[in-house]
Amino acid sequence: MNINHNYLNLKDSYLFSLIAKKVRDYKAQNPDKEVISLGIGDVTRPLVPAVVEALKNAALEMGNKETFRGYGEEQGYSFLRQAVCGYYRKKGVSLSEDEIFISDGAKSDLGNILDIFGIDNTVLIPDPVYPVYVDTNIMAGRKIVFMNGNADNNFLPMPDYGIEADIIYICSPNNPTGAVYGKEELKEWVKYALERDAVILFDSAYESFIRDDKLPTSIYQIDGAKKCAIEFCSLSKTAGFTGTRCGYTILPRELVRNDVSLNKLWLRRQTTKFNGVPYIVQRGAEAVFSDEGLSQIKENIDYYMENARIITETLRYLGIWFVGGENSPYIWLKCPNNMSSWIFFDYLLTNAQVVGTPGAGFGNNGEGFFRLSAFGDRGKVLTAMSRLKDLMLNA
Amino acid sequence: MNINHNYLNLKDSYLFSLIAKKVRDYKAQNPDKEVISLGIGDVTRPLVPAVVEALKNAALEMGNKETFRGYGEEQGYSFLRQAVCGYYRKKGVSLSEDEIFISDGAKSDLGNILDIFGIDNTVLIPDPVYPVYVDTNIMAGRKIVFMNGNADNNFLPMPDYGIEADIIYICSPNNPTGAVYGKEELKEWVKYALERDAVILFDSAYESFIRDDKLPTSIYQIDGAKKCAIEFCSLSKTAGFTGTRCGYTILPRELVRNDVSLNKLWLRRQTTKFNGVPYIVQRGAEAVFSDEGLSQIKENIDYYMENARIITETLRYLGIWFVGGENSPYIWLKCPNNMSSWIFFDYLLTNAQVVGTPGAGFGNNGEGFFRLSAFGDRGKVLTAMSRLKDLMLNA
Repeated sequence: MNINHNYLNLKDSYLFSLIAKKVRDYKAQNPDKEVISLGIGDVTRPLVPAVVEALKNAALEMGNKETFRGYGEEQGYSFLRQAVCGYYRKKGVSLSEDEIFISDGAKSDLGNILDIFGIDNTVLIPDPVYPVYVDTNIMAGRKIVFMNGNADNNFLPMPDYGIEADIIYICSPNNPTGAVYGKEELKEWVKYALERDAVILFDSAYESFIRDDKLPTSIYQIDGAKKCAIEFCSLSKTAGFTGTRCGYTILPRELVRNDVSLNKLWLRRQTTKFNGVPYIVQRGAEAVFSDEGLSQIKENIDYYMENARIITETLRYLGIWFVGGENSPYIWLKCPNNMSSWIFFDYLLTNAQVVGTPGAGFGNNGEGFFRLSAFGDRGKVLTAMSRLKDLMLNA
Repeated sequence: MNINHNYLNLKDSYLFSLIAKKVRDYKAQNPDKEVISLGIGDVTRPLVPAVVEALKNAALEMGNKETFRGYGEEQGYSFLRQAVCGYYRKKGVSLSEDEIFISDGAKSDLGNILDIFGIDNTVLIPDPVYPVYVDTNIMAGRKIVFMNGNADNNFLPMPDYGIEADIIYICSPNNPTGAVYGKEELKEWVKYALERDAVILFDSAYESFIRDDKLPTSIYQIDGAKKCAIEFCSLSKTAGFTGTRCGYTILPRELVRNDVSLNKLWLRRQTTKFNGVPYIVQRGAEAVFSDEGLSQIKENIDYYMENARIITETLRYLGIWFVGGENSPYIWLKCPNNMSSWIFFDYLLTNAQVVGTPGAGFGNNGEGFFRLSAFGDRGKVLTAMSRLKDLMLNA
């Protein structure tokens, strides 16, 4: 009996536990101070009424013999896959129902998709990065190559033809940086992937935060992408589903490697190792895509984006370099006075009672940077920015 | 770029699609005949009122800013893990909260658990079998050895010390056979696993159908099992959650291999590749374990078990050999007159308009056997058994 020894190569992540400890200690020593967190990557606004109504009705259906539902198709109910097709039609992307797989969230599918790929592939991952991309590949024992995001490329690394890569991770709008690729840049990535016969894993979990209609909200808005990209999307941030769990993954029929349809491989994986998303949750997700639902979630997204605007306005006023925040709920700033990520964390906590996330926690290139999130309460965002101004102008 | 070539070694399963086609064809040719299915492995009774109420209340909570929940712990809310602890305490099994992982169902976890084991392990799987055990290991490229279930051992194969095995699948009460291991037999399996340093994957999805209180309802009722077994359980059949998706997996702290805690490995797997079960569903699952919930689900289980009793009584009356049906919702019978599984399927469909599942679909040793399920409607079960009697007695 052997365990999977690749797990022993994983580094423990102390990022969020260390943040929690520092905040706890500070509060214990300063019980009278109000600490405001802009570090959180979770939403704070409740599910919208259209979704709650759908969830409630579906729960009642499940209690009635005539309308009860047992096992559904692992890839999701047709009503929801059709709703996703409709959502993509508005983006100018035509998909068929069998190209859409309903999931319990982008995180699960981003990890599990690796099942259908050989261990001998080389994986290209941006740095800084959402740690799940790295850890899931370490678990499988794949070779990982990093591409550098930095202030010079505005944290949007471009293809390097000197690097061999089979699987390429792109997250746009990016977590943690909030940077968003334009159409020309994604065209170059698609070209690179097609030339190499590589597959792009495109994480579009934050697509609904894009305001600039020139920016792509799906990689399939780029010609050729259906032959080289899998897209992962989620209702977590779009519709406040972080605790309700529903997303979707798109594997176009044209996506073929080694003469095998990746859509068919994934269908086989899901029908074997997954039993679908709860019927109730799928009805809630369907309601997100109704006219009423879309208009209600837009109010929430607008709320968060106004928070982002307040944050970026403050940073601009203070002359602090940043990316993100204009088409993304994350703002990625350069720590003032060349402070390291953790020094700035302590400085901000101690002197302004504001908590953010040290960029160093997202990879080597995150050192010296800092993430702020727009998912908080308006009043607290305003107070936090006012404290930041006072601190920086009077320091 | 290479796909995972192990997928090419999977056999397509035509079992349920072939059954569906045969039934469709028969109905088209005999539109006046009423076909009754006892083939289905899905429940038919709705969620109980205590669960529906909890689901509805949780949906309302999610629509309110004060009670909204975002991300929860990947391994599940404490309230539900505590409820599972309480359920096991009544079985005489003491577990701590951190040994319990809430899942979206036994099927997902039975597949995903393999992530934490090396590829070089040999896997021991009973035949006949739930196909997921086989397919998930083929996907990973592991060596599979089969152990024979047959009429001689009442479809309860026992350890063979001549066979090297690292991972052992045991499902009791069994799907598809309905056979249930006794304490003495499980003791032998635990002894075998401990001697070999193997790990038992114990699928207890049907434990709530056990009526005989001398039969174990958890492998942890056997001394030493915490050092060699992972238990997978589900509310799918227990509480009608096939479309609501909630189960739990138990990894005791004592379970250590290669000096590594399997509990810690699984926690790492789940926190990296899973984001937890919906809050709403966890509240529904919690309600199952309340006094009210337990009493309400007992009525449903009693209903199904009365169906099982009607089926076994008929088979006994007809002198047809079978196992299962007394502590399990499945009845596994020997096809009369030495018919093959599919010949009997056609015979029963054509002459009695009753549908079951050919045993040959569950492995080589299933040939000549047939599965009936007790999850149907009472009236239909009675009619089906009356037709079977007429057919067998007048044939």
